[in-house]
Amino acid sequence: MSSKYSIGIDFGTLSARAVLVEIAAGREIASAVKDYTHGVMDEFLPDGKTKLGPDWALQHPEDYLEALRAVIPAVIKEAGVNANDIIGLGFDFTSCTILPVDKTGRPLCLDEKFRSNPHSYVKLWKHHAAQKQANRLNEITASRGEEFLSRYGSGISSEWMVPKVMQILDEAFEVYQAADRFVEAADWITEQLTGEKKSNSCAAGFKALWSKKYGYPSRDFYRQLDPRLENFVEEKLNKEVVTSGSRVGVLTEKAAGMLGLNPGTPVAAPFIDAHASLPGVGITEPGKMLMIIGTSTCHIVMDREEKMVPGISGVVEDGILAGLYAYEAGQACVGDHFEWFIENSLPAAYAKEAEEKGMNIHAYLRQKASKLKAGESGLLALDWWNGNRSVLNDADLTGLMLGYTLLTKPEEVYRALIEATAFGTRMIIEAYQDAGVPIRELYAAGGIAKKDEMMMQIYSDVTNREIRIAASAQTSALGSAVCGAVAAGKRNGGYDTIFQAARAMTGVEEGYYKPIPENVAAYDKLYAEYKRLHDYFGRSKNDVMKRLKKIREMAMKSGN
Amino acid sequence: MSSKYSIGIDFGTLSARAVLVEIAAGREIASAVKDYTHGVMDEFLPDGKTKLGPDWALQHPEDYLEALRAVIPAVIKEAGVNANDIIGLGFDFTSCTILPVDKTGRPLCLDEKFRSNPHSYVKLWKHHAAQKQANRLNEITASRGEEFLSRYGSGISSEWMVPKVMQILDEAFEVYQAADRFVEAADWITEQLTGEKKSNSCAAGFKALWSKKYGYPSRDFYRQLDPRLENFVEEKLNKEVVTSGSRVGVLTEKAAGMLGLNPGTPVAAPFIDAHASLPGVGITEPGKMLMIIGTSTCHIVMDREEKMVPGISGVVEDGILAGLYAYEAGQACVGDHFEWFIENSLPAAYAKEAEEKGMNIHAYLRQKASKLKAGESGLLALDWWNGNRSVLNDADLTGLMLGYTLLTKPEEVYRALIEATAFGTRMIIEAYQDAGVPIRELYAAGGIAKKDEMMMQIYSDVTNREIRIAASAQTSALGSAVCGAVAAGKRNGGYDTIFQAARAMTGVEEGYYKPIPENVAAYDKLYAEYKRLHDYFGRSKNDVMKRLKKIREMAMKSGN
Repeated sequence: MSSKYSIGIDFGTLSARAVLVEIAAGREIASAVKDYTHGVMDEFLPDGKTKLGPDWALQHPEDYLEALRAVIPAVIKEAGVNANDIIGLGFDFTSCTILPVDKTGRPLCLDEKFRSNPHSYVKLWKHHAAQKQANRLNEITASRGEEFLSRYGSGISSEWMVPKVMQILDEAFEVYQAADRFVEAADWITEQLTGEKKSNSCAAGFKALWSKKYGYPSRDFYRQLDPRLENFVEEKLNKEVVTSGSRVGVLTEKAAGMLGLNPGTPVAAPFIDAHASLPGVGITEPGKMLMIIGTSTCHIVMDREEKMVPGISGVVEDGILAGLYAYEAGQACVGDHFEWFIENSLPAAYAKEAEEKGMNIHAYLRQKASKLKAGESGLLALDWWNGNRSVLNDADLTGLMLGYTLLTKPEEVYRALIEATAFGTRMIIEAYQDAGVPIRELYAAGGIAKKDEMMMQIYSDVTNREIRIAASAQTSALGSAVCGAVAAGKRNGGYDTIFQAARAMTGVEEGYYKPIPENVAAYDKLYAEYKRLHDYFGRSKNDVMKRLKKIREMAMKSGN
Repeated sequence: MSSKYSIGIDFGTLSARAVLVEIAAGREIASAVKDYTHGVMDEFLPDGKTKLGPDWALQHPEDYLEALRAVIPAVIKEAGVNANDIIGLGFDFTSCTILPVDKTGRPLCLDEKFRSNPHSYVKLWKHHAAQKQANRLNEITASRGEEFLSRYGSGISSEWMVPKVMQILDEAFEVYQAADRFVEAADWITEQLTGEKKSNSCAAGFKALWSKKYGYPSRDFYRQLDPRLENFVEEKLNKEVVTSGSRVGVLTEKAAGMLGLNPGTPVAAPFIDAHASLPGVGITEPGKMLMIIGTSTCHIVMDREEKMVPGISGVVEDGILAGLYAYEAGQACVGDHFEWFIENSLPAAYAKEAEEKGMNIHAYLRQKASKLKAGESGLLALDWWNGNRSVLNDADLTGLMLGYTLLTKPEEVYRALIEATAFGTRMIIEAYQDAGVPIRELYAAGGIAKKDEMMMQIYSDVTNREIRIAASAQTSALGSAVCGAVAAGKRNGGYDTIFQAARAMTGVEEGYYKPIPENVAAYDKLYAEYKRLHDYFGRSKNDVMKRLKKIREMAMKSGN
């Protein structure tokens, strides 16, 4: 019998990546990437004339299909496999990334009538122009004491679905009226591939206030937001929510033709991109927290029960695996810290020496910083360069660095920033544990996790936990491929459960990080100091950071 | 009648500078500089073999005479004046810079017997190897409740005379025994020029615990420091203290011959270098605070009464002018902050652009930073990169920067550092005022004061006071020349009082800095935040800075 394969597609912010994976042992045979033709539209519509407001971020839905048409044939060709041996398809997508469609699923932006209306396009996850609406939503939610509030410890973000829809309602009622439905881009792809009009539980739960137990918020709630929204759920959303990772349907003739696959190939319901990493690393049970480390870090863990954890982004039943509650928390600024440092604080002499040695600048700094012992820099930072979006849930907090002397070196500042993100992670772990969600093991995925040994050792020392690193460099796409294999089922050469599929197809690197007792002791002391500063500046003992922001605003408003 | 002239000589850390000044209006006719041949010896004695310990800093006394022999003839030659028209001489010196001499005033280091003993040389002001002795001294002083303690709000520094002598006693008793006297280098120069064995009141008061009212500390006190010190004052110091700036004597035949001047030329008793700036700027009355801004800043003001001001370096009756109390306070790190920033935190792109534009890097940063409004950066710093040596008197405090975001730019950090030093200055002004020492006007001298308009405007805005800038670029040497003119007296073509001399010979720049009300308002708010953080971290509400230093020490002690 010939080998069987599954394809996972990861729709990111700037491109889509497909990986073709061999079912038996998860070997990644081929991968392909396609940049979106229109990228992120944050200045103009495709007409080059219609200007977008500040904080807008749109995409063009045709780009997603174009990417699919490119990457799937590309991996099939590179792998040299037969379409008959591709038994399943899974995918994940940025979220909340939504668009208005008509009855047939056609995006409104393709309609001549709406082509020049920015509200008819895809609103990308990082479209931040609905803050006003998010504020209104949070006020009303709080005043009503909505039950769902407790599931979203850090409040409703302007990035989520309802504020984005409210903005359309406020600014382009004609688009709202013309929309048959508002759908996640992920679910729109499902619809294009299988004809099924279903929402995935991961995005619905984490971004659209849906819960398995209570469904969407009440008509009464929506009416209070805006009388025109009263029947929003019934009128404007897909009727059915399907568990992410389960089979959502099979490829239609048309979709199969477009992709060079067989009609009837099973397709798995999509995940939010970060969340697809859990099956991609092989995490299918409670107690194992995955850190997906990039410009920011996402901390995801599952548990059998629903607990209220302060500052988490959300807890969603069946959010990742049926029968388990998925918890998500986040640090708003991790890799971004280090990039800020390189751009704004790296002295010329260091840049020059790194260049002369032909070294990547981060590798150069790591080489210097890794010679320091825990606590040797004398520095301590609060990692709030982009606010605190976890335990404190306060975007107005700002960064702090303490302990400078005339002998302080750049690599010490760099290391202190890394340590601060590790302390922030420990705060999140403790918040989970204090709320009764056990964190037994740590896993890490993402480019930084695989490249930066010093940082991972610091994380291990600060959290006093072993850390295992994802074997795959593209855990989201692999996780999607795992779900594709489950959608196929054992009968078709796949697996019947995600547990079996993940065990067979994924894994972690052989080596792992172990806490070094001497460092653990030093970092325990530093963490106690971090926590004290964290609470002093973060819990209203001294709101200097907020007052400075206000003084700043006043200065910028004043004349020249 | 031909014009008359005075020469002022400023003995700095690395060189001596002479300025020849026309008496009538203070015109600086000629100046000359001579680097010390041996510079600062901090590794080896002149034999190139005898190694010095850490924190040592010595000088060679012959260098001072060599410099005098060079710079005085040089300015006379440059000015083309007749020695008969040079009617007075004044000078100032770093302090406490001391050396042991024999009965004839010959430095012990010139004696073959002691040539290889480091303790026989001049201990420069920044010789920091007597910290152990300073600690013992401070403990004993505190336990005895010595009256002089209140005059030195920030305690006795290891830089001062007694710890330096105690180190000699501890480490080279033979040198202590052989010394007829320990003298300030300034007073040694006096002795070489005039034959007078007198100590100047400025250095005696600020560095040797002398007061006009109580004299030196008691025999009982010295005995408790070390029984061998019991008769230290009687046996090892000059018998007489003479008011700085008054006539100490006249040039001997030998000295006059050496310098190309007339025997009998009057010589003024010297000042500590910073303190000579007051007459050099024309400050001869209470209420006018002079900031001498360099790598660190010295804040000197005079008053009619003696008040106890927390954290000041000292208050000395007749310290600068007879009949007035001179107060000195200091910020340990001002220009040093900005240099630290350039070396450790200036991005390559900025360095490159400044170079391309042919601009000095500080000028380049100022150009960017001066476009910011007060409060616009959103940043706030505690200027403790080198501890706090003023109001809090705590060397173990460290620097803090708060308010970072991902948009924070280098010029914002640079400006925040400047603002922090301005806030530190305002703290010192308020400490003076709270203690009853009025500060009515601000003056500034030193290279930074004359060059950095942005910084001076910030200081004016933060302190809400006008700031006047010294007209002369060499206020210490000019102040010494002023005293030379007074030593001459009106009868000889000079002046009878320092008030008359200073009024005629010195001044400030025509333009001055005026507080801008809008900025004053913004900085008042920021200062309130500074003060709150200052007290939180500086007054033991949260000793995190000290704990971090201890953690650091432990880390550095631990193995590899």
